[in-house]
Amino acid sequence: MSLTLSHGPTVNVLIVTLHQINTTVGDFDGNLERIISGARESERQGAGMAVFPELSITGYPPLDLLELRDFTDNAQEALQRLVAASRGLSVAVLVGTILPRDSTSEGKPFQNAAVLVHRGHVQATHAKVLLPTYDVFDESRYFHPGATLTLAEVEGKSFALSVCEDVWNDKTYWSKRQYHQDPVEELLVRTQVPLINIAASPYSHGKGRMRQEMLANTARRYGVPVLYVNQAGGTDSLVFDGRSLAMDPAGRIVALAESFSEELLAVDLDHLPAATEQVQEIQDGMDTLFLALSTGLRDYAAKCGFGSSVLGLSGGIDSSVTAVIACEAMGPENVQGILMPSPFTSPSSIEDALAVASKLGIRTKTIPITGIYRRYLEDLDEGLEGLPGDATEENIQARIRGNILMALSNRFGHLVLSTGNKSELATGYCTLYGDMSGGLAVISDLLKGQVYELARYINRHREIIPGSVLVKPPTAELRPGQVDSDSLPPYDILDAVLEAYIEDKKTLHEIVKMGYPLDLVRRILGLIEGNEYKRQQAAPGIKVSWKAFGLGRRCPIAKADFF
Amino acid sequence: MSLTLSHGPTVNVLIVTLHQINTTVGDFDGNLERIISGARESERQGAGMAVFPELSITGYPPLDLLELRDFTDNAQEALQRLVAASRGLSVAVLVGTILPRDSTSEGKPFQNAAVLVHRGHVQATHAKVLLPTYDVFDESRYFHPGATLTLAEVEGKSFALSVCEDVWNDKTYWSKRQYHQDPVEELLVRTQVPLINIAASPYSHGKGRMRQEMLANTARRYGVPVLYVNQAGGTDSLVFDGRSLAMDPAGRIVALAESFSEELLAVDLDHLPAATEQVQEIQDGMDTLFLALSTGLRDYAAKCGFGSSVLGLSGGIDSSVTAVIACEAMGPENVQGILMPSPFTSPSSIEDALAVASKLGIRTKTIPITGIYRRYLEDLDEGLEGLPGDATEENIQARIRGNILMALSNRFGHLVLSTGNKSELATGYCTLYGDMSGGLAVISDLLKGQVYELARYINRHREIIPGSVLVKPPTAELRPGQVDSDSLPPYDILDAVLEAYIEDKKTLHEIVKMGYPLDLVRRILGLIEGNEYKRQQAAPGIKVSWKAFGLGRRCPIAKADFF
Repeated sequence: MSLTLSHGPTVNVLIVTLHQINTTVGDFDGNLERIISGARESERQGAGMAVFPELSITGYPPLDLLELRDFTDNAQEALQRLVAASRGLSVAVLVGTILPRDSTSEGKPFQNAAVLVHRGHVQATHAKVLLPTYDVFDESRYFHPGATLTLAEVEGKSFALSVCEDVWNDKTYWSKRQYHQDPVEELLVRTQVPLINIAASPYSHGKGRMRQEMLANTARRYGVPVLYVNQAGGTDSLVFDGRSLAMDPAGRIVALAESFSEELLAVDLDHLPAATEQVQEIQDGMDTLFLALSTGLRDYAAKCGFGSSVLGLSGGIDSSVTAVIACEAMGPENVQGILMPSPFTSPSSIEDALAVASKLGIRTKTIPITGIYRRYLEDLDEGLEGLPGDATEENIQARIRGNILMALSNRFGHLVLSTGNKSELATGYCTLYGDMSGGLAVISDLLKGQVYELARYINRHREIIPGSVLVKPPTAELRPGQVDSDSLPPYDILDAVLEAYIEDKKTLHEIVKMGYPLDLVRRILGLIEGNEYKRQQAAPGIKVSWKAFGLGRRCPIAKADFF
Repeated sequence: MSLTLSHGPTVNVLIVTLHQINTTVGDFDGNLERIISGARESERQGAGMAVFPELSITGYPPLDLLELRDFTDNAQEALQRLVAASRGLSVAVLVGTILPRDSTSEGKPFQNAAVLVHRGHVQATHAKVLLPTYDVFDESRYFHPGATLTLAEVEGKSFALSVCEDVWNDKTYWSKRQYHQDPVEELLVRTQVPLINIAASPYSHGKGRMRQEMLANTARRYGVPVLYVNQAGGTDSLVFDGRSLAMDPAGRIVALAESFSEELLAVDLDHLPAATEQVQEIQDGMDTLFLALSTGLRDYAAKCGFGSSVLGLSGGIDSSVTAVIACEAMGPENVQGILMPSPFTSPSSIEDALAVASKLGIRTKTIPITGIYRRYLEDLDEGLEGLPGDATEENIQARIRGNILMALSNRFGHLVLSTGNKSELATGYCTLYGDMSGGLAVISDLLKGQVYELARYINRHREIIPGSVLVKPPTAELRPGQVDSDSLPPYDILDAVLEAYIEDKKTLHEIVKMGYPLDLVRRILGLIEGNEYKRQQAAPGIKVSWKAFGLGRRCPIAKADFF
């Protein structure tokens, strides 16, 4: 690694561009193209340094692909291509990628690094010190930690390089810390230089504000500007909100990039724009949530090669909201709604479903399930041995609908959107291989009450989802006169208990103390733990809460009741 | 913590009982009952110390239940109950459980500990130093590491206490080490005392022998006896092979417990039994594999509350082998085979399926899918827009069969056994919500060739699986005259490539160098990576290889082709 600079005109590295790009895991050519073209644009704008997110060369999160040399060799080769390309650039480029360790070293073979490339050389590297290993993060599974932040020098100017979690352990901000070490403190107490953080920090509702407060605290504590570059866009169940930013040493946001979409944000550290009188506050409202979900769906579809989607339209709130998100993400011409009425489907459900489709301008097909359902009952009659009807028959209906959607997916290549919400997934009020079928579960991390809230947001300017959908009692319509409240507690109570248990990790007795009956709480927690087997076969869902089912919540199926 | 002994008659702690018990996650009462009754039996046998596996109080692996205080409070309370019970015992009890850290400490709130309880006191504790964080293990997610092994003293005798991974990092055994630190070396180079290791080490085919060699190396290197206690039995996708053992300082096995089942093994360290002339070698043959699978199924069913199971019997090798395992695990009276013929089902398939059922003595039901299938085609005709037939129709058949099995499960409470193998799961040669349906995928970690090998083992004494099943070309019978080789390479080639890529983590070009055509290898690796979406919705499968799909192999769905 060269520590001396090559020849070439000096550039002003205090003019920095922050590039919140939307990478794809394993798309080394595409990611590199985004980085190099971004660097060229940075240069055109007169900047001296272009900064890209964490693991921008590999895409984030690569997960266990990091164990495959086809993947890691390509990552290293892509970095070499970037180094070669940098000979033709005056701008310094800071990217995220994996760096191999000496093959004789104990432990993990790679580090999660920020690499500063300038004029054909790797000018500096920084290996992530703090490796998040909780929720959806498994970085101790993959990486060897770095020891300290790196103080990098370009064109005579110094910067502190950090990667994501490195800045998430300040003792003056956190009451309970995840790590003993604070690498930011170690460096910045002795050297006041601008702090650069390259990140891949997924969205959770409310996290943007927390990030702002945390970074502001750091800026003020050390009296340094902070440059934060976050990934944008979705991949599998994660969606990255971007919102890259520059802060002045007073912790005020002086430049802020878009939410969720790609952007290049230029910042002149020598002439930081004045913070507006009104302090900019990052806030997550329903608009942010809607954008998170539509981005998550758009990118999942695009990165998996789907140009169109299909979903069952029941006339209920969940499928209506999912249809709206799908139209936003993929365009109404690429969304198809399928009505699959049974003898238990009310005429108003069909009307509502058609009304939603009409408002959205999506095509529909109606494929009644009655004939198929009757044939199942006939042919299963002997096998079911004449026992009285129960959930078996309800599940058959849900599964026929799942099969029909999958048949349309198989024939036309549509992505099947699963429409279940988190309240259902939590309690198992859903049918495995039935309404749980799909490539992506768009709203599976929204409690039922949040689905209503999002529907009201969608209707804020004009009625897209018919008012009747918002006021009628929720029902699966799998038997005559069925409503959800036959099987479940009222959603306001259910949702409060679910949130207390899943997100806030309260105990049974703490939840009871919130004012809910012991038997009810015990029943709900029992449903959650008892339905893990369904969730382990669920489609990936877009994570928008602090604790979503899926990769970030790993529970055993076989277990005793421990309440 | 008391470091002085209470009154009471001295016992000979050099007589040790190793208790490989089968715990259930969260069953604090049941696990404690096993531990206390085991300790009483130990005392009756004149022993001075009873040793139980890693996390035997909580059950292993508790996974994210460790984030719930209802769970962790109960674990701590169970330890207190054990301490209280130990007042009535002369025997010292070494158990595995979680120990809380000071609430003001940074990082994870618990340690994974060995706790030595004696006469109403916690006599010593040891916190696991090396925390495995790879494959199915996520211990850095949950635990704060200990610093060193613990030298414990009971009745004037000293022992080195270690937990599982602590003994897996010897530089004289491993060419590439996972950790910088070797806590065994740190302690035993200065103090030669018996080494006790409490473990929860899941089975992989061939791992028993490796464990033996590794422990023998340690015994010889330090000239100390080794006592190894491993969990027995299955939980979710993991099955623990027990095979607890005592080794003399020459590294010879002098006592060895059963594979997979619970056992109490008594060892007198003062009078170690002479190793037999013939060195005992732990070997994994087809018998071990069969036992692993039947144990995994038996315990999954028992711990999830299933008394009976149901599976589709196609007359093919996969469902035949699965049926045999099910009978071994649950008894033939608790297994039901369902024949679901279609127009494409050959008469010989029906004969073979019935022959297997007859040999095993299991009940069958025949539920033809033809009528339902025709009805799907009729009612979907317009929806499918008259495009030519393709995999759509094949998947409908597989899904009808999945639905029928699920209906029987819903009505009668049977556990549905999925019968797919690893070669299918790897390449996506299986139908989501169809043949992939089930609560447990019994042979999903066996390559097709291993399924045949296991079938031959099953038939070693008498023909249980008809010879015709072993010789006919594999077929899904989803269209006229279909055989697997229409879609897949020959299984011997496919399996070799799958093993090279998945287990041995070879690169595309390394596999080509093994003698396979580039295009073929590229196609197979593309199938593996392209079918991740199916596997993420697969039923849990019993892990028997070194790298199974599921918890231990986490791959993104949305990704670019990186070969």
